Amino acid sequence: MTDLKSWVASANGDTDFPIQNLPYGVFDDGRGARMGVAIGDQILDLGAVDHGLDAALFAEPAWNRVMEAGPQLWADLRARLSELLSNEAHRAAVEPHLVAQSQAKMLMPFRVAEYTDFYAGKNHAMNVGTIFRGAENALPANWLSIPIGYNGRASSVVVSGTPVTRPLGQVKGPNDELPRFAPSARFDIELEFGAIVGQPSQGMISVAQADEMIFGYVLLNDWSARDIQAWEYVPLGPFQGKATATTISPWIVTKAALEPFRVATPERERPLLPYLSEPGPMNYDISLEVALQPQDGTEAVISHTNTRELYYSAAQQLAHHTSSGCAMRVGDLLGSGTISGVTPDSRGSLLEMSWSGKEPLELPDGTTRSFIEDGDTLTLRGAAQGTGYRIGFGDCAGQILPAADLPDWAK
Amino acid sequence: MTDLKSWVASANGDTDFPIQNLPYGVFDDGRGARMGVAIGDQILDLGAVDHGLDAALFAEPAWNRVMEAGPQLWADLRARLSELLSNEAHRAAVEPHLVAQSQAKMLMPFRVAEYTDFYAGKNHAMNVGTIFRGAENALPANWLSIPIGYNGRASSVVVSGTPVTRPLGQVKGPNDELPRFAPSARFDIELEFGAIVGQPSQGMISVAQADEMIFGYVLLNDWSARDIQAWEYVPLGPFQGKATATTISPWIVTKAALEPFRVATPERERPLLPYLSEPGPMNYDISLEVALQPQDGTEAVISHTNTRELYYSAAQQLAHHTSSGCAMRVGDLLGSGTISGVTPDSRGSLLEMSWSGKEPLELPDGTTRSFIEDGDTLTLRGAAQGTGYRIGFGDCAGQILPAADLPDWAK
Repeated sequence: MTDLKSWVASANGDTDFPIQNLPYGVFDDGRGARMGVAIGDQILDLGAVDHGLDAALFAEPAWNRVMEAGPQLWADLRARLSELLSNEAHRAAVEPHLVAQSQAKMLMPFRVAEYTDFYAGKNHAMNVGTIFRGAENALPANWLSIPIGYNGRASSVVVSGTPVTRPLGQVKGPNDELPRFAPSARFDIELEFGAIVGQPSQGMISVAQADEMIFGYVLLNDWSARDIQAWEYVPLGPFQGKATATTISPWIVTKAALEPFRVATPERERPLLPYLSEPGPMNYDISLEVALQPQDGTEAVISHTNTRELYYSAAQQLAHHTSSGCAMRVGDLLGSGTISGVTPDSRGSLLEMSWSGKEPLELPDGTTRSFIEDGDTLTLRGAAQGTGYRIGFGDCAGQILPAADLPDWAK
Repeated sequence: MTDLKSWVASANGDTDFPIQNLPYGVFDDGRGARMGVAIGDQILDLGAVDHGLDAALFAEPAWNRVMEAGPQLWADLRARLSELLSNEAHRAAVEPHLVAQSQAKMLMPFRVAEYTDFYAGKNHAMNVGTIFRGAENALPANWLSIPIGYNGRASSVVVSGTPVTRPLGQVKGPNDELPRFAPSARFDIELEFGAIVGQPSQGMISVAQADEMIFGYVLLNDWSARDIQAWEYVPLGPFQGKATATTISPWIVTKAALEPFRVATPERERPLLPYLSEPGPMNYDISLEVALQPQDGTEAVISHTNTRELYYSAAQQLAHHTSSGCAMRVGDLLGSGTISGVTPDSRGSLLEMSWSGKEPLELPDGTTRSFIEDGDTLTLRGAAQGTGYRIGFGDCAGQILPAADLPDWAK
């Protein structure tokens, strides 16, 4: 497997998309939205190529039908694509259906049924807790027992490349008597790992069942307006501060492609209840980075971390999600929560990197950042490093546009 | 309008469904799920009767397509149905398409896109705040400025009559060192008013625009496991404690039917930001009640209140929901939050009625209730009283079944 090569030359060099990856997306090269698989710097058009599978699975530009078809189909499709793209014998039939990624615009790869955001990064929870409540009360009492999560807004999920307009909202300074309605001045990223639920469930499921239900993973940036959130979130949690946009990377990296990179979650600091116990390694070893590019400026990588930092795996999050009897649906998206390492250069949000604005970041162009400025492009990247290849996710990027003018009725 | 009568005799007597109501549902009388309108004790089968409107609107058993068609179609449909069911000239053609409600099972009337739950009842917020934080800190600092809301789980929404299984979950007593995984011992109702979004939006909208987007209303019971919620909700809000089920009444009462019952929201205790100002009366005068029937026992009405108690209207909630740029979709459901009056006999949850178990309710059969017991059926009812008729919602009911046994992997 490690030595497998593709007849697509660009898949064998420095690429996120070698034959070992085969991630799934939806693209449009000007001839309409279609489903495709990335290989090197190309996309194989799955509606056009003869792969021998039911054409109805590829009739609408979204991966939901393939997910619904279930794990055996997932395995059959991956095996068939691997054969088609590695065996020279298929080249003549397949090559006409390759589209250059440079000629294609990537679209949302699936219809998001519902979106849930977790809080499974312990260093992030510690950092945020320390900033807002002090080091002695940093971690909520339930944190070591519950993969804490809250429901987000599925309609806000967009694909990488979609511009994000700075939100308006209610903000109130600590010394203000009343809130104002104004553009967010503390607009931020959250570096997360997103799991896509590929099979439905009714009733409570185990961690092992949850792992089987997951179709694949994406990088996820849960844009967060810290000032809106700070004023609104007591007592029912984040709402409009998290509803502007959540950006995902365009390629669904399958669970199958990530199998070689499974690792155990960190050692438990408090015993978990049995329903959250893991039957095997459920975490992944994926390097992550955050880059910031000012308008007309040079991109700088401002953080490096790894999905290993997650205290709870996506399978644990999903099992907990069903514990009250909550039904899960094909296309549900679970954000991991912000992933931060221990060191300052491995934090997954500007809130943490700038320590709530007290220690602004210095960029190579001499400017500083406490939070995102208009025109900035923020990009998440991630890859699992194999021997001789890497499983990459592609960019998860968005540029921030200035806030809209207040409409007359809001003045 | 007030004097209008139907040739369906049962629509002119003591009924929730006179010709002035015409609420929309989905029913199955053994011949498949279809869309219908309630009239007296009958349902008019809208896929069968000749109403002159596009048959495609009624081709699948859900009201989403009608919603998508927009306000002019909503008005045309209502006018046409009123004519067909009031003018004797249509009787011969229409009557064969009536189905007795007693012969039909009601199904979910629409596909829920996303579900959001608000917290717009001030007496409820005061009661809950007093129970948990004391009278001096009862109302959160933001409450008088923000229609506080959080995202719920659309997959948990069920139609009246669906049994609800008592959830399992993490619970922890105040003196316990660690949580247990156990059936909820504090399972509760929340008496709410649900608004259905019938038109999409992108970007921020005004309260006036929000009101135009609302298609209709239902009664809503947001079943709540208080013990699960208490342990999980800090800092990101309710999650599994609210994910077991949310029951809605089966008939969508249209905004048009409720026009005569518009009233202003209560006087503001703190000025609202302009984006939340109401251009006219956006609240409704609808009497509400909660009934509890023990297994094999007699039903007792345990509370009476009114939607007038809501401090924020559904239109204000919806406008706020879009303030950060959050897109809304056809089929979004907004729960109002629990509606409680000022007096003890007008509270909208057992948590409040029993004052967190300190003052258990006495039922006519001599038993008491702090929270729901297995076998209990809880029913919400509501109606707006016109002159000579009432606009009713039908029952919003659910019986609680015992918790499932713990699976081996959770022991």
